[in-house]
Amino acid sequence: MDWLIIAPIAGLASIVTAVCLFLRMMKEYESGTEKMQEISAAIKEGAEAYLKRQSETLAIFVLVMAAILGISFGYNVALSYILGSLATTLASYFGMRAAIRANVRTTNAARSGLNKAFTVAFYGGSVMGLSIVGIAILAVSVLYYVYSNVYADPKQSLETILGFSFGASALALFAKAGGGIYTKTADIGADLVGKVELNIPEDDPRNPAVIADNVGDNVGDVAGMGADLVDSYIAGLIAAMLIGAETYFGKIEYITLPLLIKASGVFASLIGILFVRVGKGSNPGAALNRGNFFTCLVFAILTFLIIEVLGIGTHGLGVFFSAVAGLIAGMVIGITTDFFTSIDRTPVLRTAESSKTGAAINILSGFSYGILSIAPSIIGIVIATLVSWNVALMYGLDPYYGISTAAVGMLATAATIISNDAYGPIVDNAKGIAEQTGLEEDVVEIADKLDAAGNTTKAITKGFAIGAAALQVLALFHAYAMVVKIDFLNLVDPRIIGGLFLGAMMPPLLSALLILAVGKNAFRMVEEVRRQFREISGLMEGRTKPDYAKCVDIAARGALKALILPGILAIIAPLAVGFTLGKDALGGFLAGSIITGIIFALLMANSGGMWDNAKKYIEAGNLGGKGSDAHKAAVIGDTVGDPFKDTAGPSLNTMITVMTLVATVFAPLIALYAIK
Amino acid sequence: MDWLIIAPIAGLASIVTAVCLFLRMMKEYESGTEKMQEISAAIKEGAEAYLKRQSETLAIFVLVMAAILGISFGYNVALSYILGSLATTLASYFGMRAAIRANVRTTNAARSGLNKAFTVAFYGGSVMGLSIVGIAILAVSVLYYVYSNVYADPKQSLETILGFSFGASALALFAKAGGGIYTKTADIGADLVGKVELNIPEDDPRNPAVIADNVGDNVGDVAGMGADLVDSYIAGLIAAMLIGAETYFGKIEYITLPLLIKASGVFASLIGILFVRVGKGSNPGAALNRGNFFTCLVFAILTFLIIEVLGIGTHGLGVFFSAVAGLIAGMVIGITTDFFTSIDRTPVLRTAESSKTGAAINILSGFSYGILSIAPSIIGIVIATLVSWNVALMYGLDPYYGISTAAVGMLATAATIISNDAYGPIVDNAKGIAEQTGLEEDVVEIADKLDAAGNTTKAITKGFAIGAAALQVLALFHAYAMVVKIDFLNLVDPRIIGGLFLGAMMPPLLSALLILAVGKNAFRMVEEVRRQFREISGLMEGRTKPDYAKCVDIAARGALKALILPGILAIIAPLAVGFTLGKDALGGFLAGSIITGIIFALLMANSGGMWDNAKKYIEAGNLGGKGSDAHKAAVIGDTVGDPFKDTAGPSLNTMITVMTLVATVFAPLIALYAIK
Repeated sequence: MDWLIIAPIAGLASIVTAVCLFLRMMKEYESGTEKMQEISAAIKEGAEAYLKRQSETLAIFVLVMAAILGISFGYNVALSYILGSLATTLASYFGMRAAIRANVRTTNAARSGLNKAFTVAFYGGSVMGLSIVGIAILAVSVLYYVYSNVYADPKQSLETILGFSFGASALALFAKAGGGIYTKTADIGADLVGKVELNIPEDDPRNPAVIADNVGDNVGDVAGMGADLVDSYIAGLIAAMLIGAETYFGKIEYITLPLLIKASGVFASLIGILFVRVGKGSNPGAALNRGNFFTCLVFAILTFLIIEVLGIGTHGLGVFFSAVAGLIAGMVIGITTDFFTSIDRTPVLRTAESSKTGAAINILSGFSYGILSIAPSIIGIVIATLVSWNVALMYGLDPYYGISTAAVGMLATAATIISNDAYGPIVDNAKGIAEQTGLEEDVVEIADKLDAAGNTTKAITKGFAIGAAALQVLALFHAYAMVVKIDFLNLVDPRIIGGLFLGAMMPPLLSALLILAVGKNAFRMVEEVRRQFREISGLMEGRTKPDYAKCVDIAARGALKALILPGILAIIAPLAVGFTLGKDALGGFLAGSIITGIIFALLMANSGGMWDNAKKYIEAGNLGGKGSDAHKAAVIGDTVGDPFKDTAGPSLNTMITVMTLVATVFAPLIALYAIK
Repeated sequence: MDWLIIAPIAGLASIVTAVCLFLRMMKEYESGTEKMQEISAAIKEGAEAYLKRQSETLAIFVLVMAAILGISFGYNVALSYILGSLATTLASYFGMRAAIRANVRTTNAARSGLNKAFTVAFYGGSVMGLSIVGIAILAVSVLYYVYSNVYADPKQSLETILGFSFGASALALFAKAGGGIYTKTADIGADLVGKVELNIPEDDPRNPAVIADNVGDNVGDVAGMGADLVDSYIAGLIAAMLIGAETYFGKIEYITLPLLIKASGVFASLIGILFVRVGKGSNPGAALNRGNFFTCLVFAILTFLIIEVLGIGTHGLGVFFSAVAGLIAGMVIGITTDFFTSIDRTPVLRTAESSKTGAAINILSGFSYGILSIAPSIIGIVIATLVSWNVALMYGLDPYYGISTAAVGMLATAATIISNDAYGPIVDNAKGIAEQTGLEEDVVEIADKLDAAGNTTKAITKGFAIGAAALQVLALFHAYAMVVKIDFLNLVDPRIIGGLFLGAMMPPLLSALLILAVGKNAFRMVEEVRRQFREISGLMEGRTKPDYAKCVDIAARGALKALILPGILAIIAPLAVGFTLGKDALGGFLAGSIITGIIFALLMANSGGMWDNAKKYIEAGNLGGKGSDAHKAAVIGDTVGDPFKDTAGPSLNTMITVMTLVATVFAPLIALYAIK
């Protein structure tokens, strides 16, 4: 039990650093002019109102679920579940508060130069990354400590903690899907009327949906995305611990090891954050990437040391190389994602070029390159799986344990990844505030530079997150197989194939439901924005103010209403398959959902990013520039890509994690009561 | 061996009927005015030139492949392979000739009323359906007869005949992909310049790409689609015979049975065709559907009789109910496809409605409903699989044999299905000819009515074909497992998961390559059409004729160039996986490709159909009608859907069949030489 203490220490250190960064940001940076503060306050109000309403809606769901879990598996599982829900909610709420405060301070700092602005944006993102990961690792290690004193069998402790993971993931799914619908409803509504119909610029304060759009960035990209990554983080961690307990008969080193690897990732992130700085002649993107690579290096060294200290012989090397294989695969996936979505690479250039033949060809091109972009990531995932499998075998380690530690390694530096990712919406919002308050041209330019760096980092971390989710959920899938005691799942058996088909159907189905919800809500938003421009006199001339709150309300209502069905579906479907077709078919179901989940997530994230950048490429003055036919075509492509990359795509990771967790948590019941 | 004779008789009867119908059509129906004959001749010339060039290009491929097969597995396999390629080529060539002759005769007959016009179009389609199925069943039964005298072991005979199936499928893939690229290159090129830029109507003779467009309907929809369905037909048949031979140790009844079921399907189709007639107050669509249902009924009765006569006891009932389960599942899938693509149902109406908010929302809506449309089909396939599995077990029949007979039953009435499907492009072309030659309004109206019926039937048969392909390829997958002697394919093994991921990647990848090819070629076509309008003086005024041949040539060259990579990929990929990762991973690979193959095929076919009909709904005068903003948005959606539904979607069935056949044919080599 000695070494285990490192994990909660890492968690606490992470949380304390986050709080310090937050306080320092609040103390050292001003929030700007009165107008800036006014906008910031409106965003804050809208975002908090949404999160409050979301929490109220979900509270009922959480309580019902907790009751079901309590009756079925005892109150400890129910308690874990509630704690998981709370942890996710708390972390994303805190992260979002920090981000909203960072937005306006970034804009203000941009008035005194790039360096200062970058620092505050980066601090804002880091508060999110460090607090969310800190809470996660602290909670898991404390729960493990507590339950290992309650239950004699460590497996039982871990199965109880699965409830925590389930709670975190279920909440993450709702946060991600709801936030994703919210943000794109507002974004599309604002763009379609403002940019397309009335020809007013983006982020123009006359646009009634502009505040809703800014709020959306925060509830969708910051809160939702943080919840998404941390749910993979927790699920992968517990899966590895469970596989360790199962395979090595509860030998404590193998259970502790995944926690310690995560802890070394946290320390590496803390050290890495100190090294992110924009020097002279450098740019923000390079600074972020440098920090990222440095963190990975420190992580590898720390992990090696920890494993050596733990003393599990050659097994240690197996774990080390597996973890490193995961990490490298993650980086490769990130880099190829970058290739497919970068504004100066073939896929984006071709897609932009094809806009000249009209919107249809632009869409076909982006969709096709989006599919092609799947290949390197899938091959990367397969290689990481096979390498960690073989490395594990080579060092006499259980191969499933090898794969699960690869998954743990891949997301160990999550604090850095989330920090970099949260940086994106912060600078995006900062740019919006600069434009809404009519700041000088050079300030907007600095904000633009920060924003461009944010887009690249976002693409890389998104690829990374999907790759990591794939490995995590594979580890979780093995954990499921262990819990239900499946050694063989015969793929030649039609019942398994049936399960595979049904499972494979789920991620596309979820995507469709979310995209339809965005379309429907955007329609309402468009009507409302049109109405305001029609009915509020003097709005177009800037003499009167629009009714921002009405638009915020439409986005919120629609999002909450629409996320219920897909959320419930993700929980009901695996149970339905399990109870009617049995645990083997459910295994097939999970495998099927993982396969198409990853494929659709990659496709949607990358094609969305590609359309976005193709549009930006044209807006930069190429191929006729703004207002040309090619630009109009590219705007249509970008609008199609919006719910792909920010609503449906990012919800899929979480959905497959939730479904696998549902199956694993309910496995004992399914084994007992399945029809056949 | 007694009963086997029924199969070649059915094949001959089918071919003879086809020839009679063809001769009767040629004798009884005139080909119309000089201008009509001129257009018809141009279409014929273009289509034959393309097929000739395609055959020349593919001849090299076929010979190289035959040499590889000959060296690896002996000359009988090579011979089967060449025969399979020839059979497909011959059948699709003959079918296309008949269709082109039927086009113009339909137009001409429309001048004397609906009944006559329907009859000739239906005859034209039937020639295609009957000849292609007749050749298939004749060839398989004769080959089986010949090889069963060469080899003592019936399994060896059947493995040799697999070469025939491989030849037919490989050619079908090339025909489908090439034809699909050709037809959409021409279609999009003609539309983008003609309809969108110059505002001239569809099928206007001034449009230089109009003949290429008509040719495309024939090489894509008639020749390609016929080849596609028949390759599933053959593959499913041989898979069932092989499973029968393997499971029942070569007992002849179980090998003959699938052939006899197919024979009864042929007879049922022959009888059914006699009953298709448009009475007073009836419409063409209803007539086709009546014929279809009647055929299914006759098929069920005949199959029951044949099984009784064969005398395999209770096993017979197992086979019968399995076959019927397959047939019913096929119909259910067809009907739900119809729901999702019908012009008067919610999905199309909503998609049309969403066009009012612009092209992006139209595309998002069509894409999402396309995904939703997957669900009933997938559930139908799963139920058919599980029902035939359980029915088989109930009657003591080998369950894999049960599933394979369900697959055989589902496509047994292929002659009718192909006939109905080929009816579509015939009336589509007839309508085009009517418009190009400026026939009277009431003639065009009749052609329109025929065309509308064609669209519905096409949607139903397309759903049917995809469902059938799913079952066939599952049967083939079992055949693969048997040939390589895999009893267990452990889905929990990461190597299998790796294979599953790689296989699942293939169908989307193929789609992307094909869609990109269409985009690229359409771009060239657009440039050429624009050039002709610019440089040929008097073209717009109708005083001079465009250079049709140039457009035909661009479509042909582009199609042939672009189909090589995806075609080769379908053959190389399974071999690469098999030789490097082993036969188990290859099993996972095949399963993965089947899953996403079916999902993407359904998604693309249905969303394409939906966009098409949403556009037609608006063109019928709703939501602002032609020329409105909603219409422009719907046209963009339709153009996106074109390569979805007519290029990529329909190639996927064939691709997964080819990959499974490659794996099965090369299984012995893979078992010997795989790295691990």
